Amino acid sequence: MATKPSIPKGTRDFGPQEMLRRKYIFSTIEKVFQKYGFLPLETPAMENLETLTGKYGEEGDRLIFKVLKRGAELERALEDRSKGFADEALRYDLTVPFARYVVQHQNELSFPFKRYQIQPVWRADRPQKGRYREFYQCDADVIGSNSEYNEVELTLMLIEVFEQFGLQVQIMLNDRRLLQGLMQYFGIEGKLIPFVTILDKYDKVGFGVIEEYRNAGYSDASIKMIESFLASLASTKDVHELSEELSSKFQAQGAEVGVQGIQSLRRIMNATSLALGRPVNNVAINFALARGLDYYTGAIFEVKAMEGSLQSSISGGGRYDDLTGVFGLKGMSGVGISFGADRIYDVLLETNKFPAELGGSTKVLFAHFGEAEALHCLNLLRQVRDAGIAAELYPDKAKMAKQFKYADDKGIPFVAILGENELKQDRITVKDMKSGEQKAVRQEELVGWLSSMIAGSK
Amino acid sequence: MATKPSIPKGTRDFGPQEMLRRKYIFSTIEKVFQKYGFLPLETPAMENLETLTGKYGEEGDRLIFKVLKRGAELERALEDRSKGFADEALRYDLTVPFARYVVQHQNELSFPFKRYQIQPVWRADRPQKGRYREFYQCDADVIGSNSEYNEVELTLMLIEVFEQFGLQVQIMLNDRRLLQGLMQYFGIEGKLIPFVTILDKYDKVGFGVIEEYRNAGYSDASIKMIESFLASLASTKDVHELSEELSSKFQAQGAEVGVQGIQSLRRIMNATSLALGRPVNNVAINFALARGLDYYTGAIFEVKAMEGSLQSSISGGGRYDDLTGVFGLKGMSGVGISFGADRIYDVLLETNKFPAELGGSTKVLFAHFGEAEALHCLNLLRQVRDAGIAAELYPDKAKMAKQFKYADDKGIPFVAILGENELKQDRITVKDMKSGEQKAVRQEELVGWLSSMIAGSK
Repeated sequence: MATKPSIPKGTRDFGPQEMLRRKYIFSTIEKVFQKYGFLPLETPAMENLETLTGKYGEEGDRLIFKVLKRGAELERALEDRSKGFADEALRYDLTVPFARYVVQHQNELSFPFKRYQIQPVWRADRPQKGRYREFYQCDADVIGSNSEYNEVELTLMLIEVFEQFGLQVQIMLNDRRLLQGLMQYFGIEGKLIPFVTILDKYDKVGFGVIEEYRNAGYSDASIKMIESFLASLASTKDVHELSEELSSKFQAQGAEVGVQGIQSLRRIMNATSLALGRPVNNVAINFALARGLDYYTGAIFEVKAMEGSLQSSISGGGRYDDLTGVFGLKGMSGVGISFGADRIYDVLLETNKFPAELGGSTKVLFAHFGEAEALHCLNLLRQVRDAGIAAELYPDKAKMAKQFKYADDKGIPFVAILGENELKQDRITVKDMKSGEQKAVRQEELVGWLSSMIAGSK
Repeated sequence: MATKPSIPKGTRDFGPQEMLRRKYIFSTIEKVFQKYGFLPLETPAMENLETLTGKYGEEGDRLIFKVLKRGAELERALEDRSKGFADEALRYDLTVPFARYVVQHQNELSFPFKRYQIQPVWRADRPQKGRYREFYQCDADVIGSNSEYNEVELTLMLIEVFEQFGLQVQIMLNDRRLLQGLMQYFGIEGKLIPFVTILDKYDKVGFGVIEEYRNAGYSDASIKMIESFLASLASTKDVHELSEELSSKFQAQGAEVGVQGIQSLRRIMNATSLALGRPVNNVAINFALARGLDYYTGAIFEVKAMEGSLQSSISGGGRYDDLTGVFGLKGMSGVGISFGADRIYDVLLETNKFPAELGGSTKVLFAHFGEAEALHCLNLLRQVRDAGIAAELYPDKAKMAKQFKYADDKGIPFVAILGENELKQDRITVKDMKSGEQKAVRQEELVGWLSSMIAGSK
């Protein structure tokens, strides 16, 4: 193969530095998931094709990566194309495999079942900036419980994760029942999703949604009411006042479902504030929040970064009343959130929020002048590692400059140098790569000296 | 869909308990990798088909999962089958993607490049006990260094990982150059691999390999020498004595390459013992160790469990002199090891070596009698979590028995119960699920009490 190798478009290699940052993101999220009682689940990359087909709409079906049949199966498919060329496909998200898992294992599981799942998914989307064909999802869901305490817990988890990242965010809540109430109040007949899909764009296009509602054939009376509603959102009225107003409007119209939505949101906000033990600054009800996905039926969540240039959401979720129904298990209400790891990565990088020293990287390189010195280093190396300090020996005989360049390239903060003199005097020279300072340390004091230097530099 | 959903054969779901155990295995291995200066790498699940084809032999090529073309591309392939139905395929191992990565990024990398990679691979093998179509590999490799210190470090890592698992193992070393020397000494012409492939079975079939060598058409004289060699291995002679004998035989035959192999093994053993600072009990040279893979050219490693019923190896590796050559980068020597996570899982389970309390699971469930009590729990819940203790609130209104069953199913060691009385007296009742003991604790003392109980139960 003469040409330089490459990888499929829309996919990525993650080198050491990116990986350490990604691991920091995943482990921060994972620790919060675990602290709240969510336990890990992993499902196979490949699902039976029939498990996935029809779950993501027509467009979604087209974007599913299918796995080619092999051998005799492929031969038969070529003879009779109606058999199809694939029995298996790569998972498109973590939600459908989760629903499939719950139905398949319903008799072994204890409900409410709280699981988190951090795995890649694959979509044959047209690759573009920030959109990949392989990317990780980080989901936490509770299934088998109607309680609003789940929404409270998920809100607390959103708050805690972004606090740990040191990132200012706006967490927005709404409720699909409230949106249903709005439709009734506006006098719009028909399904919720078309209404929601347009409203979902309000955040980006503002009053541009009015034009879209007009194109969708809504009546002039309805359009006028939508306009007036959006105007009141844009006004300076506080949410409490607005929700009082809406509530009485819903009641007057008999839109009971909308009232339920409002009351539920209030209870969630109150309990969140109580649980937090301090005012909730970055969580707010947003009556225009819609979320595109069509399986949500109750509360919906969305998180935006208040720092950096990213406009789109970095986390979201909601309640769905019938996710497992499609696999034959009815009446299982669930609620979940999902963190967009790639977008969080971009925001943390842009706003310079990654910790200066990421766990997992080497702290000391042992450099040496030759065979005898290298052999002698082995013993010191063990002592340093036994103290829990990641360390390595430059393996080859090489010029000092090359060994230092290696440390520099790898961001190793200390280089311990063993030469003939040091060997004679039972010492070792340690160089602080940041300050450039060098110090000859007695070999038996090396571990203590390094430990205090590393602790001090944190 | 009326039928119960399922997953493709040879794939697995990993539920919470399996996942916590698997995470323990991966994180133990990963921490050792990092302590030795290896840094993480991840490559995409899909590689270009041409990257993988021809790297694993004919049989390997058949076992690669290919990704079906889509849309117009698929139409064109159906019209002209010579175009093939796939441009992409799922990775078959981590070694070829690693070689591809190194060649593609050679100008950005600092050599020697030490990376580890823990990711799933896919093979369309016939599923059977212990063999899956999706499984994880855990690899650590150094590329761009000829130094035997790399072999020493990898041996130390093997020792340390299995020590941390508390598992008795036998780590075996050999060298492909020694095997080449043996061939010369036996007077066998031809390639090394057929000779090695048969020798690789010695461990299982013993002297049965003689028959196989006979079938392979080796001369009677050669067969006789192989027999005598295997007999000396089976004798009580120690390795040191044997290697002296072999060394002089190699020298007499001019099989210099064999002498190099022996000397290298001795240096590795000496340096390992020096680095360890204590006698190396579980590492031994095994002259009959062969390893099936054909790209090894120097040292080879294999690890077997000395406990449990598993016969096959649980870890292995070796040095390869030209892994990146196939992608156009010559002269890059590398050496690596791989841990078989699935087999390690089975052995640890069988020998009962998993820690009783795996990290990540909930320590306290707050059970309650109703709305007012649940709301009150939120504040206590936060305090417990702030102390770093994973905790959850039973979200629904339910009978106490049901809430206790939930804790029991999930293996939660403590249940904190808040009823009307406790609420009045500012106390909370905590039940130790193992001992069955109950105690009413003052609410402000709950965190301290739980912390000490949890610390004590470790």
